[in-house]
Amino acid sequence: MKSIRLIAFTMLALLLPVLCAQAADPLPSWNDRPARKAIIEFVQATTDKASPKFAPPEDRIATFDQDGTLLVEHPMYMQVVYCLEQVPALAAKKPELKNMEPFKTVLSGNREAIAKLTTKDLEQIFAATITGITVDEFNAEAKKWIETARHPRWNRLYTELAYQPMLEVLQYLRANGFKTYIVTGSGQDFVRVYSERVYGIPPEQIVGSIGVTRFGYDKNGRPTLTMEPGILLGDVDAGKPEGIHMMIGRRPTIAFGNSAGDQQMLEYTRAGEGARLALLVMHDDAEREYAYGPAQALPDTRIGAFTQALYDEAKENGWTVISMKNDWKRIFPFEK
Amino acid sequence: MKSIRLIAFTMLALLLPVLCAQAADPLPSWNDRPARKAIIEFVQATTDKASPKFAPPEDRIATFDQDGTLLVEHPMYMQVVYCLEQVPALAAKKPELKNMEPFKTVLSGNREAIAKLTTKDLEQIFAATITGITVDEFNAEAKKWIETARHPRWNRLYTELAYQPMLEVLQYLRANGFKTYIVTGSGQDFVRVYSERVYGIPPEQIVGSIGVTRFGYDKNGRPTLTMEPGILLGDVDAGKPEGIHMMIGRRPTIAFGNSAGDQQMLEYTRAGEGARLALLVMHDDAEREYAYGPAQALPDTRIGAFTQALYDEAKENGWTVISMKNDWKRIFPFEK
Repeated sequence: MKSIRLIAFTMLALLLPVLCAQAADPLPSWNDRPARKAIIEFVQATTDKASPKFAPPEDRIATFDQDGTLLVEHPMYMQVVYCLEQVPALAAKKPELKNMEPFKTVLSGNREAIAKLTTKDLEQIFAATITGITVDEFNAEAKKWIETARHPRWNRLYTELAYQPMLEVLQYLRANGFKTYIVTGSGQDFVRVYSERVYGIPPEQIVGSIGVTRFGYDKNGRPTLTMEPGILLGDVDAGKPEGIHMMIGRRPTIAFGNSAGDQQMLEYTRAGEGARLALLVMHDDAEREYAYGPAQALPDTRIGAFTQALYDEAKENGWTVISMKNDWKRIFPFEK
Repeated sequence: MKSIRLIAFTMLALLLPVLCAQAADPLPSWNDRPARKAIIEFVQATTDKASPKFAPPEDRIATFDQDGTLLVEHPMYMQVVYCLEQVPALAAKKPELKNMEPFKTVLSGNREAIAKLTTKDLEQIFAATITGITVDEFNAEAKKWIETARHPRWNRLYTELAYQPMLEVLQYLRANGFKTYIVTGSGQDFVRVYSERVYGIPPEQIVGSIGVTRFGYDKNGRPTLTMEPGILLGDVDAGKPEGIHMMIGRRPTIAFGNSAGDQQMLEYTRAGEGARLALLVMHDDAEREYAYGPAQALPDTRIGAFTQALYDEAKENGWTVISMKNDWKRIFPFEK
């Protein structure tokens, strides 16, 4: 009996490190390929005091684009869907909008016509649907929508369509002393409504497009903040490093994007001294998600383009390209 | 022998809690008066899960005005001094400024004339001295100045003139899970240069007046951020709650100010649900620091006024007024 126990114990002792190593795999949804390796080597080098690439904790700033990098952006950005779906309620309050463009088109429900709305049309819809209300009212309305609206393809809440491999990266970086930020063209206030729950990122770590808010007093003399038309920061392209400077005041050490709107953020990140990693998520998995950008042209041009030029810049400058098809074992948390 | 040891041990055991309590006094530079009591009771109530005033850690946002609240603001705001002292170097580079107002007045060294410069004059000086350079250049210049420039009255570095009792409050709040922010009319980038060292507050937790920065590429093709004329946020008065919403996205639970420029921040803080504390530092100690506001009118009107009206609002709305003279045992860290 004793010898059997001893053998069992010895085997367990020998197996334990293996079991622990498996349990501690920080990126279980990633295939063992160069992208995974680049992330892990970067984290190991920047957190190892003996490494020449060591970064003190205060320099460990990680920035992530949202739409298409952390979350499905097809067929439309989540916040665009939100604004379009607010139009019927708005038209009920303001019937004069029913015969005015672009509201008339939105109310028609004609998907093809809606897909053809211009950026200017969309801006007009944004201004009408998310301004003129208080910050508290906006938060309540957005929260309600986010908890009920579903993506047509998966029939899942939009917030369920965050990419499992990227959620693992967020957690892995935080476990290693990185402060994680979202740097998004979507509205800062919109993303803040669910960022803590979905990504574990608090409101103050969301850098997004920023509208004007105005302090004042309501009819009861209570101080209020009202959302007004006007943009303080358009957080795309050059606006991303500008927004990062404004909101964080430090250059990222690692940054993730997926489109031309992230180019400047990735360049700015890489231009810093010491170890810097820039990564691009490439949508090349038509079966499990979508294929667009250099992988396959899609007709909808409103989705920030991952152009061939960007792909070439990535290759030339040592950015890491993540292939959803090849690098990710699974795409969504709800997949087993 | 044994009995003596026992007595000594018993005495030590009895004394230990007393000694520990003394060692753990979180606000040793505060006299035992209502202001100290209000702060401690607020922290105890918001961190005690059994209290109806309990605030979960994510709601524990503490905001502090800087000039006059955390640091001496007389006879001029630190950043105003900085900009004025940059003028000679600027005029050496651009000699045409020597005969142009307001630069001519600044170069004259005539203190009375300098004290009479208008806000518009100062804005012109700000635009000339802190724009047209990269963010990195600005940081280096400001850092150099901060490490050498001295306040004329104490012949100490300006950053040595932070108030010891307020440094204790910052630390006490952080030890109790509060996230501490500075919300200042001074330039965000300026305060960020020394905030971590002086206050233990990292750059991303500085909400200040924000100038325009522009992303571009230098002659070597390296991405740069350049400071440009133009203001994105004037972080005084209504700009403070607006800036808090933009940068933090949450309403403070506790806020400290010292002037009319902090009124809206304090109102906004108090208007939130649950426990909220608003405090005003009153400068009534002409001997150890300065006396102005309701305590004593000073001729220089550029220092944000702590008016009688603000004092009355504080009393009416249950804000806590801190008397530097009566509430603070010592003013500066270098005083023993």
